[in-house]
Formats: sequence, structure tokens, C-alpha cells
Amino acid sequence: MTAQTFPSSIPSTMRAAVLHAPEELRIEERPVPVPGPGQVLVRVEAVGICGSDVHYYRHGRIGDFVVRAPMVLGHEPGGTVVALGPGTVRHRPGQLVSIEPGVPCGRCAQCRSGRYNLCPGVSFYATPPVDGALCEYVAVDEDFAHPVPEPLTAETAALLEPLSVGVWACRKARVTPGSRVLVTGAGPIGLVAAQAARAFGATEVVVTDVAPHRLDLAGRLGATTTVDVSTTPLADTGFEPDILLECSGVPAVADEAIRAVGRAGRAVLVGMGGDTVPLPLAHVQNFEIEVTGTFRYAGTWPTAIALAASGEVELRQLVSHRYGLGDAERALTASTGDPTVIKSLVCPQNA
Amino acid sequence: MTAQTFPSSIPSTMRAAVLHAPEELRIEERPVPVPGPGQVLVRVEAVGICGSDVHYYRHGRIGDFVVRAPMVLGHEPGGTVVALGPGTVRHRPGQLVSIEPGVPCGRCAQCRSGRYNLCPGVSFYATPPVDGALCEYVAVDEDFAHPVPEPLTAETAALLEPLSVGVWACRKARVTPGSRVLVTGAGPIGLVAAQAARAFGATEVVVTDVAPHRLDLAGRLGATTTVDVSTTPLADTGFEPDILLECSGVPAVADEAIRAVGRAGRAVLVGMGGDTVPLPLAHVQNFEIEVTGTFRYAGTWPTAIALAASGEVELRQLVSHRYGLGDAERALTASTGDPTVIKSLVCPQNA
Amino acid sequence: MTAQTFPSSIPSTMRAAVLHAPEELRIEERPVPVPGPGQVLVRVEAVGICGSDVHYYRHGRIGDFVVRAPMVLGHEPGGTVVALGPGTVRHRPGQLVSIEPGVPCGRCAQCRSGRYNLCPGVSFYATPPVDGALCEYVAVDEDFAHPVPEPLTAETAALLEPLSVGVWACRKARVTPGSRVLVTGAGPIGLVAAQAARAFGATEVVVTDVAPHRLDLAGRLGATTTVDVSTTPLADTGFEPDILLECSGVPAVADEAIRAVGRAGRAVLVGMGGDTVPLPLAHVQNFEIEVTGTFRYAGTWPTAIALAASGEVELRQLVSHRYGLGDAERALTASTGDPTVIKSLVCPQNA
Amino acid sequence: MTAQTFPSSIPSTMRAAVLHAPEELRIEERPVPVPGPGQVLVRVEAVGICGSDVHYYRHGRIGDFVVRAPMVLGHEPGGTVVALGPGTVRHRPGQLVSIEPGVPCGRCAQCRSGRYNLCPGVSFYATPPVDGALCEYVAVDEDFAHPVPEPLTAETAALLEPLSVGVWACRKARVTPGSRVLVTGAGPIGLVAAQAARAFGATEVVVTDVAPHRLDLAGRLGATTTVDVSTTPLADTGFEPDILLECSGVPAVADEAIRAVGRAGRAVLVGMGGDTVPLPLAHVQNFEIEVTGTFRYAGTWPTAIALAASGEVELRQLVSHRYGLGDAERALTASTGDPTVIKSLVCPQNA
Repeated sequence: MTAQTFPSSIPSTMRAAVLHAPEELRIEERPVPVPGPGQVLVRVEAVGICGSDVHYYRHGRIGDFVVRAPMVLGHEPGGTVVALGPGTVRHRPGQLVSIEPGVPCGRCAQCRSGRYNLCPGVSFYATPPVDGALCEYVAVDEDFAHPVPEPLTAETAALLEPLSVGVWACRKARVTPGSRVLVTGAGPIGLVAAQAARAFGATEVVVTDVAPHRLDLAGRLGATTTVDVSTTPLADTGFEPDILLECSGVPAVADEAIRAVGRAGRAVLVGMGGDTVPLPLAHVQNFEIEVTGTFRYAGTWPTAIALAASGEVELRQLVSHRYGLGDAERALTASTGDPTVIKSLVCPQNA
Repeated sequence: MTAQTFPSSIPSTMRAAVLHAPEELRIEERPVPVPGPGQVLVRVEAVGICGSDVHYYRHGRIGDFVVRAPMVLGHEPGGTVVALGPGTVRHRPGQLVSIEPGVPCGRCAQCRSGRYNLCPGVSFYATPPVDGALCEYVAVDEDFAHPVPEPLTAETAALLEPLSVGVWACRKARVTPGSRVLVTGAGPIGLVAAQAARAFGATEVVVTDVAPHRLDLAGRLGATTTVDVSTTPLADTGFEPDILLECSGVPAVADEAIRAVGRAGRAVLVGMGGDTVPLPLAHVQNFEIEVTGTFRYAGTWPTAIALAASGEVELRQLVSHRYGLGDAERALTASTGDPTVIKSLVCPQNA
Repeated sequence: MTAQTFPSSIPSTMRAAVLHAPEELRIEERPVPVPGPGQVLVRVEAVGICGSDVHYYRHGRIGDFVVRAPMVLGHEPGGTVVALGPGTVRHRPGQLVSIEPGVPCGRCAQCRSGRYNLCPGVSFYATPPVDGALCEYVAVDEDFAHPVPEPLTAETAALLEPLSVGVWACRKARVTPGSRVLVTGAGPIGLVAAQAARAFGATEVVVTDVAPHRLDLAGRLGATTTVDVSTTPLADTGFEPDILLECSGVPAVADEAIRAVGRAGRAVLVGMGGDTVPLPLAHVQNFEIEVTGTFRYAGTWPTAIALAASGEVELRQLVSHRYGLGDAERALTASTGDPTVIKSLVCPQNA
Repeated sequence: MTAQTFPSSIPSTMRAAVLHAPEELRIEERPVPVPGPGQVLVRVEAVGICGSDVHYYRHGRIGDFVVRAPMVLGHEPGGTVVALGPGTVRHRPGQLVSIEPGVPCGRCAQCRSGRYNLCPGVSFYATPPVDGALCEYVAVDEDFAHPVPEPLTAETAALLEPLSVGVWACRKARVTPGSRVLVTGAGPIGLVAAQAARAFGATEVVVTDVAPHRLDLAGRLGATTTVDVSTTPLADTGFEPDILLECSGVPAVADEAIRAVGRAGRAVLVGMGGDTVPLPLAHVQNFEIEVTGTFRYAGTWPTAIALAASGEVELRQLVSHRYGLGDAERALTASTGDPTVIKSLVCPQNA
């Protein structure tokens, strides 16, 4: 790596939010990474806090993924390219980018079949033992640092990761003009899934939740109907969707919602939670419902960028709270049980 | 209907096996039906006994389908066209046919989309309140009386119905050359599903059951491996299928089998049983497994006929017992708990 | 049919525009049809004039379809239900409807597979020997008289037929969010196809034509770029679409446009014209381009209605000229060679 | 690379068949390649001669691919792994392998979408400027040296490349049990395509050609009907296939064959030849035929190996001639105009 591409203005150390044990997050000094061949160095300007970050923070694990050594959290970064590693061709310093947080191996059977999200050898931010992006700088494969145009900002660039989850759910569900879609759960993922469904042409998008604040936001962002299922059971609405995007992660909600899906419909289980979900067998058979789950995403950034840049999907209103890196722990703890928290961002360049 | 197409050799009454209440089956005299416009009259020569017939016999219902008035059982008939209704053009008397037992409405949204098996207005044999085919003659829409060539017989014509279930499962699962398929349950449906999977090109077809007799038969009919899961847990086999065809109807078997399916695999739930099946959520998500159920079939007869006529699928060995119509009740009761019963046929032309 | 459903206000005869021979159109008195079982009677209030109407008018045939007996033209009708035939359940008199002009047989292999547009036994308006809708009243199967909501009118209801052509083209082409689409030809079909592509989520929609007037309209209706190929060759634009919607019907345009399509792209040939189109073989092979044509549409009305009612597709601006029924011949002749004619409507209730 | 994996028995130079100019092939001494990281060294024991080798030999180019520097021909090699490069894990020396001759970049948009055959950066044997396999040893990425089981041999391993072309064509065409397939042209590709179609479950496979010798072989290998179109025009057969696999490369044959395809059928253009093929537009539209071409293959080796190893596809009978490396030029020239030449193999270990 040559001097002219690694400016002297870049410091040699940086701050990072490192998880050492459940509920033990420390702000530490670490070396600024040096971008390897094919990588660029990105100054991280905004990082979305995801439920999985909170889960790792509280429990030190998600299922079989266990944090065994100190690990930097965070996998929704937006920022600016500040230095180029050897052999890179796609970027210039100063480019605003949204980082796709998983780099697959490129040669296993899943990668060669176009399903790189299922690559067993993927290196994914903040999934043990790979460090994440809650820090001031990250080095990343240039192909996974996606340039974003105006009017996107580092903050909305960060939110392209959750939007990708929504886009992927809509692809799996084959949402198309005329689709009638039920979105269960109006958290950040439900809100982007509902918007993505509209962008895919869905005519009706019904969003359910138990928090009026979140349902209000769903309505402002494009849901055609919102249902507070704490007072109106889903079955009472009579809505028979073609497609269910389950974003609550609550098994009983999933069960009831699958029972609402019409003939030849699709149910995509996006929300995580519980080892098993009760699958209503007779309904799945009699109506030949297709049920599947999503695992991250593949090839979604170009679409997410296009939808966010054109304004078809609105991301800024999802941001409810902002923190400096020093307050990362507060960002992780503040969300629990507070329905006014939609999406918290950590801005690592701030104290 | 004119005299020349309704031969005087056809009697005016016939015997039929009528279910009056759970475990109350009577052989009754009924009028021979007169084929209406577009229908043909078929002399029924063999009828397969299906688990659903047994279930109606024992319980008088299957889920929401309740037998409220006396109903003729049986929906797997093979026989010979003996008379033509007005306006028919497809058959001549003497034609051997396999009857597809459900005639859809042809104009609802499901029918117009090619999913006629999901037609809410379908008229399906031996599904309340529609009479079935355990009788000497039935009238049927000529389009649903499929001509069968040599070397097929009335008996193998009857078995095209369960084969259609297997073909439909393979279509739903998208079995293709090279597929690695797990079939759980070696009853009649498992045995035709396994054979269909081979005909669709599957390289490996592993069949599991707890009855050695059935596993032997599976091996003779084309399974590449059989596993007696009463002694060898599925997980011990290390087999990671692309595709699961669940034919046991046992929820715990389904749960364990879905957990065995590899990345981007498909699980098709063919076996009925239980209101809910536990769905292993994390596995379905992490591996993006597609889970679906089958409901009957659509457009399968031409394929089933081709596979059976060419010998790629062997049906005769499935027939373990034969009964006259007078012994229909014995055919319904004999199967329970006896693993040597694979498929029982009732031959309505016999006493 | 009972008196209460066939109001006395409906006359017994009506005017119809009947093609007797090439360039010989006569306005004749004909009996008002009596709706049969399952049919409704519709008062026709607007009929779009299509290129195929003009072609029949000029040549008396389209390919193998030859007008051998006097035939009423017109297959894009909008109007109001005024009477109900026996056994109808879907409509009440006064309902504004858009008529889908082809009623398939419902039982052939194509119908049973969900491809009813390919039904060889379809009865389609103004395709010999079936009369069309350039008249004051038509009787039609109630399922094919689609109710339309506000703010749609009889005129926009008529235009749902061409919109269906565009929707069908987008389905065949699998347009989805992020698609980059080339539409060749900015006539009525190109203009609805381009709008449909936007509604399906296409990010870039480039429309080409040689008429500045039409390109202006394309730009106002949502094309992201327009190209006057009389001055700027397509190849000079450097645009490499994922998807081509060929709407010009000019073989040389199709050839050049297919050569522009990128890897794994799709080319859908909507425009008719010429017996053969030169297919660029090496390009189709090297890039594995999928080329197909469209024939009418199947199951498009619900989507077309949703897109038009929500305003995502704008139909009113397509209407460039309006005529009374007495001027139907003028409507047929006025379009030739005049690029300011986009869509002409005939209003049969007007003189 | 360590001594124990690069046995001293491997010489430092080898013979190679190098094309210098049209019709100028020289046998030259070249260094034996040293396998790089992730590569293995394979002793080449059989190489199939393909039409493209002959075309390069005669013309020095295929379309835009021009031989500008001396190039080793041959891209259908079978052989034995004899040495391992650094970091390889998949093979042991002595393993019989079939080499997939194109190694894609693994990171472009096509690769990341699972369409690695369309990778613009692929390195493909005997496509300028990449050397091929008509030589004694090649180094190859271990992932593209596919292990083959008994009873396959180096010769049949070589023929897995053309079989992959046939498998890919069947995938593109979506051949499935019950399909009715027309294969035009009974050269090596037509013969493997026809066999692959049977293995995919096609019920009818009609093969056409003008050479009785080739049609005889087609019949022995599984075609259900063969047609000598020099005496019986295709149209006279009345055959209406669901699927066309065009393997002749003759534009007029392709045109006529596409016109034979039934409603909603697929036509896959495998044979190369001519810049354009006349596409019968009205037929493609009226019947909504899907037309596409194939470019090599992706992910076909596992399926091809399974089909060849199980005997469902017979490859040995395709081999009509064998040559030593010194006779490579004769292998290239012998085929022209001689219908008894089906597939020629060059065995580089022979003089």
C-alpha cells in the first residue's frame, strides 16, 4: 500500500465498542485497520443498532453463535472511503458508502449458485468471532462498500442494511403489483418490509402491532391499514393476505398470521425468536401455503439504494435516537420495552 | 341420452358402500347414475382404499369436513367406460380409464390461475357431501376420466391417484436430476413418492420407516438407502437431503426431518396428522428452507400415466390385499396396525 | 330472464359498427343482445381503437384470422351493467365495468394450467367470427365484466385493456424493483408498458421512438429517459437494459434492441409486424437472453385496476381523440401516419 | 509447493498441440505447468474434440474471439491428479477427474448471482488467449477438477463436458417427467441432449437429422422416435413438442423447428451457426414460446457425473475415433463431412 492512498490524516489508533461478556461493553483503543488487497478503509459515520446487537449484548450469544472472545459489535455501517488498499479499482477517497456487512467465500456451492447469504464460510460483522463496525474505521472488500448517491447520507446509508432485509423478504415472498400483504410487527424491520412491499407494487399492506406509536409511523410510511392487535384480533379484520411478512418474532403471532394467509399464499418468517414456531399443518396443506425464513440477503444493495434514493422508501423517519460512540452501551440498553425507540444510531465520530 | 349409447346391458340399480355413521358402513342398492352432459358412465373395477377413507370410516370426519348424511366412500377408481352422456367426444365405450376424483369449477380465481386443486368449489369423491366410487358405476366428467394404455389395468389405473400425490409432491419439491431426497414414511404414499422422485431424476432417495417389511419393499422399488428409524436415528445417518418428502404424518418425524434438510432445501409435508407441526424456526431461517404442504394434485394424470406405463414406476407390488365390494368394511378395518398391509383394493364387480 | 332485471328502458335494437369488407364499415341496426345464463348486459360507453381494429379494417384479416362474414369491430370496452342474465351473482345494475374481451373455454389443457390466454377455444371480441364491442350494448360473462372503482370512468375502464397488455408484458419480463428497462416504441402500448414497468419498480425506463410528440408524452408519463432514434442511434446511448419490451413491431428495431440487452436479460416482443424477426443468435447465446412474445393476457385486470385507480398509471393523457359511433370509420382511418394520434376512443352512446 | 506433493516422476517439459494460424497446428515442447495456490496438476489422458476446436483450427476465430497468439486447443479433458498446489484440500494424487474448463472470477455480478457461465472475466480453456488442454499436463483450480467415481474412465470423464451442455440445455428448457422433446441434430451435442432429456423424465424424445448412421445411434441411446428430415419433413410428423433443443446450428432448421413447438413451449438454441436466425414472430407471440440460447453451463458437473455413473446416460458409444497427441491435427480434420465421426478423442499420453 502506497503513501498517497493512505493519508497521514488517518490516526493509527481508534475507539471501538467491544463486548467482553454479557452486559459488559468497553470502549477501547484499537489499531486502525490497514486495508488489505482489494479492500478499502472506511471512516464509519453512522451505525444502526439492531436487535441482534442487543441480543449479543444481553446474552453473549444467539443460538449456536457464541461470543467466546472480545468482539466489536455493530453491522449496519455507513461512512466514507478514506484510503484504498492494493489493487482496488471501484472507489475514490471521499466516496460515501453503505457497507454490506458479510463477505462470502465466493467459491462454495452456495456462492456458486448465487445464494451467497448461505455461504458457510462468510465473514460477517459482529458475528463471532468477526469484529463489527461500532468503531471509527473499518477495512472492507471494495465490492461490499456500495457507493450511495445523493440525497442519501451516512445515516441513511447505515439504514440500507435493514432495508435490505425488507427487500429480501419481498423477493422471497414474490411481492408484485396487486399483492395483498400482511406485515406482523411494526419494529424497524416491519417498517422497512412494509415500505419495500409498497415499492414492489403491493396494493394492500396491512401492518399489525400492539404499540400505537409504531402503528402511527407505519401509517405515515405507507401501510394502507394498521391494526392494533391488542384490541382487534387479526381474525376479526377478515383480511386474507396473499403474502405474510412475519416481523414480530413472536411464535403465537406467526401461527395466527399463517392461518390468515389465503390459498397458494406465501409466509416469510423474518422475525427471530423461539426455537420452534407452531406450524398450522392442515391450513398449510389445504391452502398449499409456502413457508420460508430469511437469512440476511444477497444482491439487495443496488435495489435498496435505488428505492431509498428515489424516495420510494423513507428511511430518515425510522431514526428515533442518536448516540456518540461513548454512549454505545446506552444505545444498546435504551430500546428494551420502549416502543418510542424505533431505530437508534451510533455515530462513531462523535464522543 | 340416446339408447344407442346407454346399452341395455347396464342395470338400473347397483350396490354401493355407504357410510352412515362412524364405523357403520352399509352395502346398499342405489340407482345407477345417468351420465349428464359432458359425462361418461364408468363401470368401476378397482378402487384403492386410502387413509382418508379409513379416517372417515372411523371418525366420520376429517378436520372441518364432516359426514352429515350417508355418503359413498372411495376416491381411487379405475374402470371401463360403458356409456356416453350427451355432448361427449373424448371416449368410446370399452375404454379403460383412471378417474381423477375431483372436478373443479373452472372459473374461480384458483382455477383460472391453474391451481384447480385449490378450487373452493371442487366436487371431490368421498368428501362430504359428495358420494365416492365404492360402488359399481359412477358418472364422471369425460375430461376427468383419463384413458390409460396397456400394460395398465383397472387395478393400476386405480393406483394412479396415489401416484399423482407422489408426482405432485415431486413437482412442489422441484425434484430434478441430481436431487438428494429424504422420504419419511414407507406407506403407500411414501412408496410412490420415492419412486416418483427416482423418475424425476433424484440420485439418492433415502426412505425411513419403523416397519422392516415396508423398508424392504421401498428398497425393491428403488430407494437407494432405507433406514429403520426405530433402531437408527435419522441424525446418525449424516444424510443432508436437498429435499424432504414427509409422508409419515407424524409431527415429531416432520420436525426432525426438516432439521436434516440442507441449505436452500425444500420440505414438502404430504402426510396428514395433527393440527400443528413444530417448525424448527432457526433452521428454516438460517438455511432458508422452503416448507409447504400438498393438497391433492393438478394436472398430474398425464405424467402419472406415462411413468406407470413405461415401467419407471411400479404400482402392482403396492397391492397387498384385494376384496369384493361386500367386504369393503373389512378392507377399511384390516389395515390398522398391520404393516403388511400396503394397499388394499376393493373390486366392486366382485361380491 | 325476468322482467325486473331487464328494464323496459333498454331498447330492442341498437347501432353497431360492422366491417363487411376491407375499408367497408357500416353502421347498422342490430338486436340488443339478451344476456344468457351467467352473463350481464353492458351499455357500452367508450371503446378504445386498437391497431388490430385498424388492421382488420384495412386488410380484412390479421395473419390466419380472416373476416369471412360481417363482424362488429372493437375489443376495448368500458361501460355500465344495465341488466342481469339468469344465475348471475357478481353485479348490480349501475355498476361501472371494464370488459375483458376474451372468454376462454375453462376446460382445455391451457385453461387448466392457468394460461387461459392461450385457450384455442377462446371467444374473443372482434376476432373472426366473434362480434366485438363497437356497438351500444354487449352481453358478456359476468366474470369478465370487471367492476371498476372511482376515480375510474368508462373511458379509463376502456383503457384497462391496453394497460393489461403492458402489465402482462412486465410479468413475462419479470420486471422488479431495480430493473433497467428499454421500451421501443411510444405508441399506446409502449406508453402503458413503460408506465407498468415503473409500477413494477423499474428504476430506469428508457423509451425510444422517432416521434418527438410521443417521446414528450413518454417523458411526462414516467420514462426516465427518452431517445429519438431518428437522430440518436440506440447503440450510441450505451444503455444496456436488463429487460426489453419491444412495442414498435418493426423487425429492425427488435433486432437492434435485442442486441442491446445485457447478460441474462429478457426480451419480450409485444409489437406485431412481419412474419419473422431476425434473431441475433450469437448474442442470444453468449448472453443467454430469453426472448418471448405476448399473446393478450391472463389474470391482469385486478392489477390493472389497482394501478389505474391508485394513480400509479395515468391513462387519461393517452386519449387524444374522441368520436361518436357514427364516426367510427373516421376513428379507424385518422390514426395512420399521424403521430399526434395516441389513442382514439369511440363513444357508442354518442351519435 | 513441497517436494512430496510434486513427484520427481513428473517431467519438466511436455508436448502440446498449439494453433499458430488457421490450419497450422504444431506439436511443441512446453514447460509442464506448476500448480499455483488452490490448483492441482492433472495428467491429461483423454480430450474430446469439439466443433469449436475445429472452427478455431480452420478459421482462427469464432465471432469476436480471435486467436492472436499461439494457443493450445482442447477444452474437454479427463485425467488424473498427479500433484497438489499450495493450500489445496479436495484431492489426493491418483484421483481421476473431469475438468470443467472455465474458471470464473467469483466476484462479478454474474458470479454473485449464480450465473458464473456468464462471467465476463472467466478463464476458459482454448478460448483466446487462454491455452487449452490438448497437452500432457494442465494445472487447474481444484474446485474445477471434479472427482469421478467408477465405472467412469478418463475417456468418459472427458465426455462430461458435452454432457454438461446437454444437462444445461435441459435445465434451461425445464424438461420434466412427461415432457415431449424435439432434438434437432444428432451430432454429439444432440445425442447427449436427447439422453439428458430422457434422464430428466421426458416421455417422448424425437431426434431429427439427415444422417441415417447418427439417427441409428440416437435410437440406440434412447430417442423414442427418429426422423430423417432429408426424406420426411418435420411438419409431416405432426409432432408438437413442448420443448425444442436445437442442436443442428442450421438457421432454417431452427426456424422450422420453432414453428413446431406447442403453446407455452420452450425453444433452446444450443447449436451455433450464423449471425442471425429467423424468428417466426407470430408463432412465438400467438403461442408465447420462450426462446433462449445456452452459453456453456454452470453447476452441471455433479448432475452429469451422477447420470453417467448410474448408466442413465451412455457416453462410451459416442466415441467413434481415438488419436494420439501427435495425430491431433488429423483428429481436427477428419470430422468434416463424415457422418460416421461422432466424437473423436485425443489421448495425449499416446504418441
